[in-house]
Amino acid sequence: MNNKLSGWDDTIVALATAPGIAAIGVIRLSGTTVFSIVSKLFPSKNISDQPSHTIHVGMLRDEDEIIDEVVLSLFKGPKSYTGEDTIEISGHGSPFVQEQIINTCIKYGARIAKPGEFTQRAFLNGKLDLTQAESVADLIAANTKASQKTALHNIRGGFSNELQQMREQLIQFASLIELELDFATEDVEFADRGKFYSLIRQINITTDNLIASFQLGNVIKNGVSVAIIGKPNAGKSTLLNCLLNEERAIVSDIAGTTRDTIEEQININGIIFRIIDTAGIRNESKDVIENIGIERSLEKMKSADLVLYIFDVNTETSASLDEQQQYFKDAGIAYLMVANKTDISSTTKECGYIKIAAKQGFGIEDLKEKIYQVTVNNPINTDNTIVTNVRHLQSLQQIKKSIAEILQGLDNQLPGDLLAIVIRTCLFHLGEITGEITNEDKLDYIFSKFCIGK
Amino acid sequence: MNNKLSGWDDTIVALATAPGIAAIGVIRLSGTTVFSIVSKLFPSKNISDQPSHTIHVGMLRDEDEIIDEVVLSLFKGPKSYTGEDTIEISGHGSPFVQEQIINTCIKYGARIAKPGEFTQRAFLNGKLDLTQAESVADLIAANTKASQKTALHNIRGGFSNELQQMREQLIQFASLIELELDFATEDVEFADRGKFYSLIRQINITTDNLIASFQLGNVIKNGVSVAIIGKPNAGKSTLLNCLLNEERAIVSDIAGTTRDTIEEQININGIIFRIIDTAGIRNESKDVIENIGIERSLEKMKSADLVLYIFDVNTETSASLDEQQQYFKDAGIAYLMVANKTDISSTTKECGYIKIAAKQGFGIEDLKEKIYQVTVNNPINTDNTIVTNVRHLQSLQQIKKSIAEILQGLDNQLPGDLLAIVIRTCLFHLGEITGEITNEDKLDYIFSKFCIGK
Repeated sequence: MNNKLSGWDDTIVALATAPGIAAIGVIRLSGTTVFSIVSKLFPSKNISDQPSHTIHVGMLRDEDEIIDEVVLSLFKGPKSYTGEDTIEISGHGSPFVQEQIINTCIKYGARIAKPGEFTQRAFLNGKLDLTQAESVADLIAANTKASQKTALHNIRGGFSNELQQMREQLIQFASLIELELDFATEDVEFADRGKFYSLIRQINITTDNLIASFQLGNVIKNGVSVAIIGKPNAGKSTLLNCLLNEERAIVSDIAGTTRDTIEEQININGIIFRIIDTAGIRNESKDVIENIGIERSLEKMKSADLVLYIFDVNTETSASLDEQQQYFKDAGIAYLMVANKTDISSTTKECGYIKIAAKQGFGIEDLKEKIYQVTVNNPINTDNTIVTNVRHLQSLQQIKKSIAEILQGLDNQLPGDLLAIVIRTCLFHLGEITGEITNEDKLDYIFSKFCIGK
Repeated sequence: MNNKLSGWDDTIVALATAPGIAAIGVIRLSGTTVFSIVSKLFPSKNISDQPSHTIHVGMLRDEDEIIDEVVLSLFKGPKSYTGEDTIEISGHGSPFVQEQIINTCIKYGARIAKPGEFTQRAFLNGKLDLTQAESVADLIAANTKASQKTALHNIRGGFSNELQQMREQLIQFASLIELELDFATEDVEFADRGKFYSLIRQINITTDNLIASFQLGNVIKNGVSVAIIGKPNAGKSTLLNCLLNEERAIVSDIAGTTRDTIEEQININGIIFRIIDTAGIRNESKDVIENIGIERSLEKMKSADLVLYIFDVNTETSASLDEQQQYFKDAGIAYLMVANKTDISSTTKECGYIKIAAKQGFGIEDLKEKIYQVTVNNPINTDNTIVTNVRHLQSLQQIKKSIAEILQGLDNQLPGDLLAIVIRTCLFHLGEITGEITNEDKLDYIFSKFCIGK
């Protein structure tokens, strides 16, 4: 791991807890001069001489002036989050006081940390690989049991271990093949092609599983967007309320927000569904969609993972419904047709639609289950590795491509030197995921999406 | 100190950092069963056997399920903030994860802490007295250098020490006088009345100084409210902007707020001045005030610490100004008369009013200095004790009353037994401030104003 990239020999400081008035606030410092900086602020005890993982209480000062009474937590590198010397200053939760503590640290030589810079340093110092670092941000953003567990699995190296195994096996074979090249004139074969073939097929299956897991991973991490559309009086609002009442706790009550920008969340089986109220989409004509007129609303519906088309079973004609479904199919939109007001329906025909009576709450649980089935469609086993990151998916797709080339090469008895090149490409993409192979710009981009202080 | 009040033998838990997504969040536990509760969540290490003031990193679990990777800070009572066994769990800053950590602690026997309950326990365990505890809340709310320093002075026992000194001297005399009573038949005088007289006079001076400091203390803690009033076109809005531009950093930019509810803050010499825009108060008649009509606006002006009456020096008549000033005097309103538009004034008469030209920014610094002088009127020396708390003021006023009675008693050669009663009353009020004498309801009320987790 390269920890000699530019700019990493200085000391960074940032508020690590959420901003705002609270009982306490924690300011984190990391870098080569942490102990000498904090010594100046905390003269009552020689903290440089204190052992790692100890706690010290006292007054924080800037020369004669007391700033706050604080608790210092000492972590001596490499036994710290970043791998560097680290001190956490836990002070009173006053933003005014926190600002002064940070400014005093800066006065004595620290600089404000960039977003994610603590974790970036942890990565550069080999404390965690890139997938683990990325999972830290995922855990902080976790808002369901599933997203929490997936992030924790990956922080603990679940994904990295699978990749590492693949990587080690590939490296071994690549080395053997490259060794053969040194003995090319002797026509030896150190690398058992049969064994290699079955290994590559195994890697292929693992890669396929990881790629396939992304659909679920994306759903776990980002939730599912569901747009409810329908004609006026179809029962759209009643359905929305009905779905939300089931999970009232996570309904956000935004007063004065216009209807068309409201997006409410419900939790179905541990997955967040963002129910989008497309109130703007309404007309009086037969064909709801064609007459929308508002391009943005149409775009919103198109970008939803699922559209619930709700209609009044007593007034909607079969022809209109057929036309509607055809539109969805043509546009490639995932949809569910929801027949409402079935309680007062005189028709008993088996229409094949999901039947609800939103006002009475009838059929809502079945609808939710159906929504879950068509979008998630997977049992969530967070003990398995689930890919949640688009960057990882892209690398996995590259790996998949390389593996296909390797298999083809083996079938065509490609010479060892050419095979070695394809294997190296595959290894390159594996290394991209875990961060063994990367560049500074890419890292900066990845970590810029973290919070300050992490 | 009574630490056997009801309900204090259980373990409390709360989020101690501000809510919201962040790098880290800290959950605090305190009570008799802290170590046994956290042991269940943190089985990888026998934390009960670890020394106080040490840090331990590992996975927090609820049985087989991992909740988060955390850092535990151990504080064994009495060497903790509360004086009880205390553990701080520093986890990832996800509100979802924090909720689970808290819920798991509750599952294993903790209960959610009431606001200020950690500090209340610290008080009940004798870790700090009531004035120190109250200063903790003041420090958290501190938003200026002066409020921060005053709070820190009192957290460190500055106020308590002065009271303690008074208290000890009084107790000594009370004891001697009470001793005399036991030897009443022998007509001895253990307590030197002359020495006592000069002591009481000294205490009287100290009490007066403390009471007098409240005016400044209140200003430091709560700031000063300043209402700008004046006729339309007097230059009121220009003055407001002019004052705010000087301190743009702390102007809060509330879009869409109606003018009459805007309250902007400026910092003059370390004191917060809340400039209240009384745009609602306007009329076209000669007498601005009488015609206000809106009772609430009038009340707002009356409740301001200072009114700036701004007028156009070119159009306002002397008679109108005299009438206006008479109104302020009659109503007991502190005011400053501010003559605006002096740049285009043809009159050169020395009117005795503060002269500004708000548009040009002329005279604004002088006006600010004048505002500061008439409201604060004190050099802020935060090394001295400054009373900031109304509760303390009320007790000090009671002490002042008792001292007057003692002095009167000494003058009238009151018998020892009666004198002892008055001294005990004085001691009672002293004890009320520091919390030596208190009751549970009063404490609950005081601490209920703290944040949760403190």
